Parts: sequence; C-alpha cells; structure tokens
Amino acid sequence: MRILVINPNTTASMTDKIGKAAASVASMGTEITAVNPADGPPSIEGYFDEVFAVPGIIAEMSKAPAADAYVIACFDDTGLDAARCATEAPVIGIGEAAFHLASLVAGRFSVVTTLARSVPAIEHNLAKYGLASRCAKVRSSEVAVLDLEQPGSNARHKISDEITRAIREDHAEAIVLGCAGMADLAHNLSQEHGVPVLDGVVCAVTLAESLFKVGLKTSKVGGYAAPRGKRFAGIFASASPVGAGSPS
Amino acid sequence: MRILVINPNTTASMTDKIGKAAASVASMGTEITAVNPADGPPSIEGYFDEVFAVPGIIAEMSKAPAADAYVIACFDDTGLDAARCATEAPVIGIGEAAFHLASLVAGRFSVVTTLARSVPAIEHNLAKYGLASRCAKVRSSEVAVLDLEQPGSNARHKISDEITRAIREDHAEAIVLGCAGMADLAHNLSQEHGVPVLDGVVCAVTLAESLFKVGLKTSKVGGYAAPRGKRFAGIFASASPVGAGSPS
Amino acid sequence: MRILVINPNTTASMTDKIGKAAASVASMGTEITAVNPADGPPSIEGYFDEVFAVPGIIAEMSKAPAADAYVIACFDDTGLDAARCATEAPVIGIGEAAFHLASLVAGRFSVVTTLARSVPAIEHNLAKYGLASRCAKVRSSEVAVLDLEQPGSNARHKISDEITRAIREDHAEAIVLGCAGMADLAHNLSQEHGVPVLDGVVCAVTLAESLFKVGLKTSKVGGYAAPRGKRFAGIFASASPVGAGSPS
Amino acid sequence: MRILVINPNTTASMTDKIGKAAASVASMGTEITAVNPADGPPSIEGYFDEVFAVPGIIAEMSKAPAADAYVIACFDDTGLDAARCATEAPVIGIGEAAFHLASLVAGRFSVVTTLARSVPAIEHNLAKYGLASRCAKVRSSEVAVLDLEQPGSNARHKISDEITRAIREDHAEAIVLGCAGMADLAHNLSQEHGVPVLDGVVCAVTLAESLFKVGLKTSKVGGYAAPRGKRFAGIFASASPVGAGSPS
Amino acid sequence: MRILVINPNTTASMTDKIGKAAASVASMGTEITAVNPADGPPSIEGYFDEVFAVPGIIAEMSKAPAADAYVIACFDDTGLDAARCATEAPVIGIGEAAFHLASLVAGRFSVVTTLARSVPAIEHNLAKYGLASRCAKVRSSEVAVLDLEQPGSNARHKISDEITRAIREDHAEAIVLGCAGMADLAHNLSQEHGVPVLDGVVCAVTLAESLFKVGLKTSKVGGYAAPRGKRFAGIFASASPVGAGSPS
Amino acid sequence: MRILVINPNTTASMTDKIGKAAASVASMGTEITAVNPADGPPSIEGYFDEVFAVPGIIAEMSKAPAADAYVIACFDDTGLDAARCATEAPVIGIGEAAFHLASLVAGRFSVVTTLARSVPAIEHNLAKYGLASRCAKVRSSEVAVLDLEQPGSNARHKISDEITRAIREDHAEAIVLGCAGMADLAHNLSQEHGVPVLDGVVCAVTLAESLFKVGLKTSKVGGYAAPRGKRFAGIFASASPVGAGSPS
Repeated sequence: MRILVINPNTTASMTDKIGKAAASVASMGTEITAVNPADGPPSIEGYFDEVFAVPGIIAEMSKAPAADAYVIACFDDTGLDAARCATEAPVIGIGEAAFHLASLVAGRFSVVTTLARSVPAIEHNLAKYGLASRCAKVRSSEVAVLDLEQPGSNARHKISDEITRAIREDHAEAIVLGCAGMADLAHNLSQEHGVPVLDGVVCAVTLAESLFKVGLKTSKVGGYAAPRGKRFAGIFASASPVGAGSPS
Repeated sequence: MRILVINPNTTASMTDKIGKAAASVASMGTEITAVNPADGPPSIEGYFDEVFAVPGIIAEMSKAPAADAYVIACFDDTGLDAARCATEAPVIGIGEAAFHLASLVAGRFSVVTTLARSVPAIEHNLAKYGLASRCAKVRSSEVAVLDLEQPGSNARHKISDEITRAIREDHAEAIVLGCAGMADLAHNLSQEHGVPVLDGVVCAVTLAESLFKVGLKTSKVGGYAAPRGKRFAGIFASASPVGAGSPS
Repeated sequence: MRILVINPNTTASMTDKIGKAAASVASMGTEITAVNPADGPPSIEGYFDEVFAVPGIIAEMSKAPAADAYVIACFDDTGLDAARCATEAPVIGIGEAAFHLASLVAGRFSVVTTLARSVPAIEHNLAKYGLASRCAKVRSSEVAVLDLEQPGSNARHKISDEITRAIREDHAEAIVLGCAGMADLAHNLSQEHGVPVLDGVVCAVTLAESLFKVGLKTSKVGGYAAPRGKRFAGIFASASPVGAGSPS
Repeated sequence: MRILVINPNTTASMTDKIGKAAASVASMGTEITAVNPADGPPSIEGYFDEVFAVPGIIAEMSKAPAADAYVIACFDDTGLDAARCATEAPVIGIGEAAFHLASLVAGRFSVVTTLARSVPAIEHNLAKYGLASRCAKVRSSEVAVLDLEQPGSNARHKISDEITRAIREDHAEAIVLGCAGMADLAHNLSQEHGVPVLDGVVCAVTLAESLFKVGLKTSKVGGYAAPRGKRFAGIFASASPVGAGSPS
Repeated sequence: MRILVINPNTTASMTDKIGKAAASVASMGTEITAVNPADGPPSIEGYFDEVFAVPGIIAEMSKAPAADAYVIACFDDTGLDAARCATEAPVIGIGEAAFHLASLVAGRFSVVTTLARSVPAIEHNLAKYGLASRCAKVRSSEVAVLDLEQPGSNARHKISDEITRAIREDHAEAIVLGCAGMADLAHNLSQEHGVPVLDGVVCAVTLAESLFKVGLKTSKVGGYAAPRGKRFAGIFASASPVGAGSPS
Repeated sequence: MRILVINPNTTASMTDKIGKAAASVASMGTEITAVNPADGPPSIEGYFDEVFAVPGIIAEMSKAPAADAYVIACFDDTGLDAARCATEAPVIGIGEAAFHLASLVAGRFSVVTTLARSVPAIEHNLAKYGLASRCAKVRSSEVAVLDLEQPGSNARHKISDEITRAIREDHAEAIVLGCAGMADLAHNLSQEHGVPVLDGVVCAVTLAESLFKVGLKTSKVGGYAAPRGKRFAGIFASASPVGAGSPS
C-alpha cells in the first residue's frame, strides 16, 4: 500500500524526521512518502498558524499520485476534517492516532505538548473525538516546535520533567507526546519513566495499515461527503472541487 | 464604534444582504462595513469549503482599517479562533452569537441549517462552546446556501416545515437559523411559528456593541495569544505575523 | 427602552452602586431604574437567603411600570426562572450575563465570588446554562457580601489574591467577579492582572439592550410559559396569577 | 423517629393523600406528620408557583417540633436546598428519592409528570443530582395537578398511556411518577405494565428512615451550612436566622 | 424480611465484621445472614481478583434459601449486574449504596479507598451510576484490604490523613469509605472530622429494607432480564440457568 | 508475532468462524491461534453469562504459550480489564477495536447487536471508553447469538433491516456489528448499504499488530497493575497470582 505522510509545516528537516519515524514501523510492502507544502508557516503553534497550513495539505494531496491512506503529521490534526472530504481513502491525524492507541494500553493518559497556546486546540480535539475523559491533563513543556530541531536545546529535559509531573500529579498511566517533532524521543522516554510513551506518527502509520487491511474507507454519508462541485475564486481557483461531488 | 462584518464567501449578493441586516440593528454611532474576500468558495458548505475561506478572512481583517470589533458572518464560525489571535478587538461568530442569545430567551433551542453535511461542524461548535446541552437538535432543511439567494426557490417553505418539526418533535422553545443567508427570514418566521427565531447576524452585531460598551477585549493569555513572530512561505508570506507577537 | 434593574436584597447602598454601574454602560435612550424589595434578606449568601429574596423580586416587577427588559442583580441569578414566567420581556441574570460574555473573549474563565457557601449554587447554574465546561473553577475569596460595602475592609486585596491564583493554577484566561457588590472593582482589577475581568451588572444591561434591539422576547413555549390562572393563599394572595395565563 | 412530611402547596386533600401514602410504609416506631403551608399556591406547576411555596416550607419546619427527618412532598423538590440549610436533620425531596431508588432496581427509567411546563425543572434536577444519564426521558401526561384530585377525570388513563409510550419508545425499565398527587396510583400501574412504578412519597419516607438508622445528618460544610446570622426585613422578619449560624 | 449479605472474598473474619455492621442497623424483624464463597480470592484488589469472586457470589445466592434482598459487600460492587439477573429480589452493592446516601446529605463527597489499583474500577462505577459529578475525587490510602484486619497496622491513621486532605483539597462535604473492611471506622472518623463519613454496608442494609417496604423489585425488562435457558459447560454446569428464563 | 484470539464462549463453530476472520486480515508473519474455554456458557447474552466466561478466558491465557497480543472475541469485551492485569502484552476487545476504528472513518456510528438485553453492557462500555458521544445508538436486531450459526435463520435479513433504520433515523455514518458471530457479514452489508460496516474481530487483529509494531504494552501503573501475590481458594486455586505481582 502507499501512504502519503504530510507534514503541514514547511520545515524540511521535520519532514525528514517524520518520514524516518513513519518508515520505521511500516510493514513490508508499505511505501511511505513524506512531503510538506511549499506555502505556509514553518511550524504550527496555535490557531493562527493552522489556517495557513491547511490549503497546502490539500494541495499536497491533490498533486501526489492517489495514495491508499493519508497521514497528517501535526499533533493538532490540522485540516483533518477537510482532508477526509477530499478523498475516499482513510485520513488519519497523528493526534487522534496517539489518543486511540493510548486508550488501548492505559486507563488514562496525559499529553505533553510544546507551548501553552497549543493546549486549547488539543483539548477541543479530545472533546470532539470523545476521548477527553481518557485524558487526565494536556500539559505544555514550554518548548517551541523548532527548538526540537536544535541539538543544543534542553528540550528533552523539559519534556521529561513534565512527564514526571504527569505521572505523579495526574496519575497518568501513559504519556502522549504532543508534537510530531518529538517522534524520536518516545522510545527512550518510555524506558526512562516506565510507562508507555506514544508518538503519534508511528501510531498513525500503523492505524492507516489497519484500516487498509480491513478495507475501511471514509464514510461519504454526512460531514465527510465529497465537496459539492463549485468554482472557487482567486488564488484558490485550482482547489475548486468542480465536478468532484454530487450536488447532494 | 466601527464593526467590520466579514462574509467569508465570495458571493457579493450575500454580503449585501448581511450588511443590510447588520445595519438594521446597529446603534446610532456604530459604523458597519461589510466585506468579503476575493479568494475562496462562493458558499461554505462543509469542512472542505471552510479551509479556503479562512485565509481571506484574515486578509480582509489586515487590509481594512483597524475596527473596534469584527463579526464573522458564516454560521459555522469559520476561522473564528484564528481571527481572535489576529487582533485584540473582540471577534464574534454569528453562530455563537445566536446560540448565546437564544440561551437567554429559551430553555432549549433547535438549529435549522442548510445541508446535512453542515450539521457535524455545527454540532462540534455547540460542544466546544459548552452550549450543546441547550440545543435540542441541529436540523438540515436541505436548502443549498445559494438557493437562498434565488427568488423562485421554495427555500422559505422548506425551512418553515423544518421549524414545525423542531417545535413538535424536539420541544424546541426557540429556533436558530443556521445560515447567514437566512438573515431576512427570521422576523417573519417568528411571527408565523410563535417562538423566537434568531438570525446570527443581528445577534453578533449587538453582542459586538455590548462588548465594546463594557470595554472587553479578547484575552491574550492562552489560546488566543498573538501569533509568534515568524515568516510564512510562499503565497502566505504576506500573512506572516513577523514581529506581531512576543515569542512567549 | 426601559430596564428595571432589581437588586434582590434589601441593602439600599448596594442598589445605588448597582444602579450607577448599570447607568454607566446604558446607551443613550436607555432608562435605568434600580430598585430593591422592602422584604427579605440584607444580602444573599447561600440557598436559605435566596428563598426570601425571590417573592420581593416578583413584587418589584409587578409594581413598577412595565419595562422592556429586567435585570436581576444577584450573581446567583436568584429567581431568574420565575421572573421569566412573569413577563414576556427579556429577563437577564447578572451571573449568566457575565458567563456568556466571558465566553466570547476567553477560552475559559474562573469565577471569584464571596463565601464558600455560595460556590455550589454558582456551579449548579453553570451546569444548567451549559457553560460549566467554560469555567475552570469557582473560587471563594471569603469576603462577606456586606464587607464589600465597608471602605476599610481589605476585600479588594483578598479578591485580587484569588485572581492571581486563578490565573496561575486554573490557567484562567478571564475572571468573572461573583457578586453584584464587586461591580466597581472590575475595570481596575483587569488593568492590574492583564486579563478581562467581568462584572455581571454591566454585562446584563448591554445584553438586555441587545435582546431589545434584535426584538427577542422570552419564549412562552415550555418552562417559561405564563403562570396558570389560580388563586394563591395567605400572604401571597396578591401575587396570584389569576387570569394571567391560559390554562394550558 | 419523627418525620415531618411537608406538602408545599395549600391543598389539604393532597396533604391527606400524601400523609396516608407516607404512613403506609413507615416502620413501627416512626411517627409521620403531614402538613402544608397556609400561604402560597394551591398546586405547583412550574417555576413561578415554586417561589411562593418555599417560604411556607421553611415556616412549617420552624413551627413544628424538631423532627428527625423532613420530607418535601413536591416532585420538583421545591426548596430542598434551603430546607437543608435550615436544619441538621436529613431533608429529602420526593423527586430525588424516587430517582435514587429507581436507580437501584433498573438500568434506566422514564419520568411521567403532569404538565409540559414542569418538565424543564425536573430535567434540571436530574442533571444537578447527577442522575440525568439514568433517565431516558421526562414525559408530561398533560394532566393538571388538581385534576388528580378529581374522581371523574381521566387522569389515570392518560398517565397509563404515557407509561406505555415510555416503555416502548424510551426502552424505560422503570417508571417514576412525577407528582405527589399520583402517590395512590403507583402499585396498580406497576401491576398493569409489568415494570417498577415509583411514587416519590414512599421512597422518601423509607430513605429518611435509612438515613436516621445509619445516623447520617446533612453536612454543614459547604452549600448546606447554617444561614449566617442576619436580620431579614418586612414580611420575612420572622424567618431571620439571627443567631442561627456562625458567621463563617 | 431476610437479607443475604455476601462478602465476595473468602476471608471469614471480614464476613464476621460485615455481618456485625449489617446487624447493627437492621430493623427489628429483619434477619441478616452473612456469608462468603468457599472459592476465590481472600481479598478483592483490582480487576483480576473480581473475576474469581463473582461465580462464588452467584453460588451463595443459589444455595441459600431465597432472600427478600441481597447485599454484595465489596465496595467495587463486584458482580452486581449479574446478581440482579439471577433474582427478582433487589440486589444492592455497598458502593452504590454509599454513593446514593451520601448524595442525600452532601453536595459532593470524596471516596477514600484502599489501594491505587482499585481507583479506576470505582471511578467507572461512579460514571455508570451517574454519580460521578457528585464525587470530588476517589483517593487511595495505600492500605491493603487485609491490613484492615490487623490490629497493629496503622490503617486507621492513614485513612484519617487522607480524609483530612479530601476535605481541604477537594472541598468534600462528606466522605465515603471505600472498602467493606472499613465498616467499623465510619462513626469514629465522622466524629473526628466533623463531616458525614459513610460505610457502605450499613447503607446497603437500610436501602434493602427501603426497597422491600416500598415493594420494589429489580426490573426484568432490559439488562437485568433473567438469563436465557441454556446449558453451561464444565465446572460451571451447575450454574446453568436452564429453564430459568424465557427465551426473549 | 503470535496473537491468541479467545472466543469466550464454548461454541467451537463460532471459534472457527472467528479464527478464519482473524486469519483473513493477519499480516504475513502473524500467527493466529483461536481458542475457547472448556468451561462456561455456549453464548454470551447479558451480564449473567459474562461471569462464567471470564475465568475461562484467563485460563486460556495461562495455558497457551505466551503470545505477543491477545484478542477477546466477544463484543461485550468480557473480562478485558482482568485480562490486561494478567499480562504485559496488549489485550484488545473486539468491541473497543470496532469503536476506535469506526471513529477514524466516520463522524458517528450506530451499533447493531443481537438481543435487547445486551444493549446496556455495550452502552456502558462506550461510556467507559469515552466514545459514547461517537455512537448515535446501540440497536438490537433481536437475533440470538447462536441463530447466527444457523444457515436457515433470517438473521442477516433482520440485521440489514436494522442497519437501514440506523442510517435513516440515527444519521449513522458507519455501522458497527455487535457480535463476533456476525464477522462474516460485514463486507457484504457494507456493499449493500454504502457505508462502512465494521466487524470487531478483524479490527482487533489489526490493532494488535499496530500495538506490536509500535512496541506498546499495557501500562502497569494504575488499574492494570499485575495482580498482587495471594493464594485463591477452592476451584480457583490454580488461578492464584502467587508471586505474580509485587505487593504494591
């Protein structure tokens, strides 16, 4: 099968790291392609940045050869609903992927993300997915996204400290790392803290494989129906879903 | 005070109708400007269309003179969170405006919107705002947004029928009309059905005036913090919030 | 328009303060009348006091000339449901008013009220209104209501300390002051703490104006139906809604 | 032990019926006294009537000899919170009593009450008690309270029809009768429908005995603290809790 | 009436203590029989132990003469749903019993149980019963169940310390003791802390008496229907409900 | 990897069907072993049957060679929590597996199960997992479990009819089949109804592979801690976890 993994920000080094994490768990016979948009923010930190990342996600989906599944590799699951409208193939966000798998190995988990400003969006996602009751707390480590790419930053240390607090104060039984840029830290932090520590990228890839094997595609009844055929104006003319959807 | 009312789709006739509704309730001394983006979808029907409407909302906010309050005139409250990050002035979505005022005149209300595909986004908004328990049901009338602009369509009839069902089956005490394009129908439908029928445009304008009079601005602590200063790539370079935010 | 602002306790100095706060945000053309009952408790601190304040609220509504809207100026929204039954004009509680406007400028807020015994009633109101998920915590400052009227008390200091804790511990993005007697403190505390601080009195007045401009009245279908025509006994004979309602 | 059963309305025939129901389940050694206020509404149908019933409840509690437990025999649990502040002895509402016992014999129940206008108050109580998830639906039979006292009315027939619908449509496993005036119908309707049918009066009496035997009294920490010592004005001067509470 | 009190673990000294607590509140005319299974774990600490306790509960119910009510004396309410299927007589768990009575004397309560591993099961029960919103927190005292039987252990001290924290940190208005083995501590701890402290055993016995007096039996419509007649294999052949239920 | 799939009932033909379904999606290199207990009920229909199935699940886990993951193939997820305590390897219930994957391809789903008596247990599981808000309705088709094994029964027809109602009345976007015995119907029903139709067996197998690839094991902090070392009595002596757990 082919999985297109889309890093919604424009930072190529993050795309590389994400692609490597994705490939590390892919089954034999699964082809991983990791891409990022040319247009938009270099990192996604809060609601404002999200807006300018999503058109690029759709663009990457359009211009790549049709894949069997898509992974959106931003922990906010930016653009997930729109991407599901754009294809019948499954689309999985790394945030939801981690929440679902964490729910299978722990009664409750805490999230450790980057900045405080990203916390509300994650909390809203948890509520929307239905899994808010499984999450003890969404915590910020006050590490900026791109600091995760800096060898000399003490990002790992701050994240580890926050995990310690999550286990002690929230009685968290597992930890979900709240940023695609933390993909390389999960295994090691799990060893250190003695609880499952989940990175969403690998979770999403294996879930994409699960859905493919079971033959499940996104339902086109309801909110994920194909866009109605209409012509968009201006810079988004090329994104027009003309003819794409039945005018239901 | 100055209120910028942004119709997030590109259909000028809807912008006119919205602008007229807004002006009809504005206090003396309130200046209403109604605009729409040049880029994006001609109507917003579901998650996909939303994506391509939001950059235009932010662009309209940037290019207009600073206003004292902003109203986003799409019932899905498209881009509301991002718009709140972009300014300290209050930003109000017409969906939330109608939900809040309906909660002041009725124990529970139902929403009558356009197409079934728009229902999930409205339900998610209600849950996010906290007001899901006040809403008996979100109903679709199966009227496409732009059919509301066609004199000969039987849109009003379908909407009225759905209101009848909401009162009888949901025990709704009030009705919220789920599209900015229905702004001209509210008064008449309220007379016909004997319950409050709310249009979000007028609700949002008066709430914007309320916040202004009380002196309330959007909190910059938490999810609505100003965007961090960073440079966006490609077609969104002009939206870069460089220097806009403190790197907190 | 005419707004009758009812302070449900019998303390005239609080009525004066509330009336001044109300007038300070009223639009030109809005006439504010502030009254309080002759019968009942001098302050409302908990469930017991509420009981003896509500008949006086209804009495003040009955004996004043019909108003275009009513504001109940106790943070517990004492008697709000009953008052809504008694008139078709909108009735707004200062607690709900503050909760709704806070929800428009902040993702989540905390309440700082007077005594611990008042906390459960406020929590129940939040749950009933649907906005409990928007409130991080209801906190008491352990300031008695009438101490707010004493120049020498350190009430403001205690309240400010509790706000500090709400911001730090609850991650509150805005603060709602939980007593009508704190109406004069909001602006100054907002300056000090750098987040929106809301007083319910001014919120309720501007919301009453909003509803009036939009032409919204309380739904008479459901829980706010006019009282059925029946004769009350004894000291409440004069409150009998005989002939007031259709026997539906 | 002594239980004071208070019918909050002024209709003596209902007080008699309630008293008989209460006595029918009282243990040997339990003395039941059933009273009603002299002041207030002849029946409680909605929020407005409630207001004028509660001062009379407190008055009856004050003027009777101290009881070991109190039962408030209105299904809306009118004045329950205030009554709990007024004494250390347990106070039980017949609505909550029926909800709690129904939860012990059925996975989910429906309520069949009198008029539609009473439904919202019951729904709010269920949410406040925490038991909303146990209640499938609150239904009205459109029988006025005092029609239950009329031999010729077809009240029983309407109630039975509504029970049929509750079992078929709500999958209710038990039925709670939503009015003290239905106390005499429970046994017979249970036989007819083959599911538990609960009347709150007998439930409340046996729960009062339970609490007494176990030695439980109302907690005075929190919302049910004794009223603070202050002097009420006017017609409520005699209800003043002066000296009653410590000024905490 | 006859109440069979089943201690689901095999520790006879706990059965004795539970039987004594039960007898201490039983009305004259109520006959208490306390038993425990021969097969299974000596104490129930977490999900694993529960599994091996429940067949013994059903066995004890089958082999004893038919009782008028059954009490399951493990705070996890182990096997409660299955036991309700096995008889028409009421079956009450001591956990739910304590939660329901605590809800009648306090706005919110905290639970103090034995080991951390038992906390999730109790939290799930609270959510299932609907009473999670009434419980501020489920706390563990880190006292093993059988240490409660050891005179020299400092179990009581640890429990008392946890109660202190519950009152101070959770604003708990009442405390529920989370283990049948704590039955003898409730009265004394209530005296010490000045709030209601509830032991589930005595609560369950009086609730069983309540249901019996009111004539309520478990609904057989829905989840508690009698088992369908089928033959079980192997060591559970004797538990086969052959002929027990109608094949509905 | 090795997956042990446990059919908790004693019907070998169901075990065969489940094993075939499991094998049909297993990756190359995954070895599936399907077993069922010798002791217990021939089908699981409601709470009573569950009790006698769970000891056999644990026994099958103990006597088989250690597997890399375990699947419990009863839609009620019978014994799931206990099984998680018994091993560090992941354990997945087919109910939860289907709920989680359905949440990735549809906004909301409905469940179509066998008998009405099984509905409450499924509803409780959904609430416990957090996914109740994703499920529109749990429906019963009134097909007994073993009728699914009968060629001549019209089981498929009844299930298909119920799916039609779920799509029309619940606005379900996907359907979850609520019994392991329906595993062979999913693909065909999906074709017929044009929405995703999920069978839990294949979902659970692929999720087990996901967890294994990602390296996730059940957290041993909290409710899934290994059983404490103690000796069980009687027929369960062989299940004693003596020495299994640290006495934490």
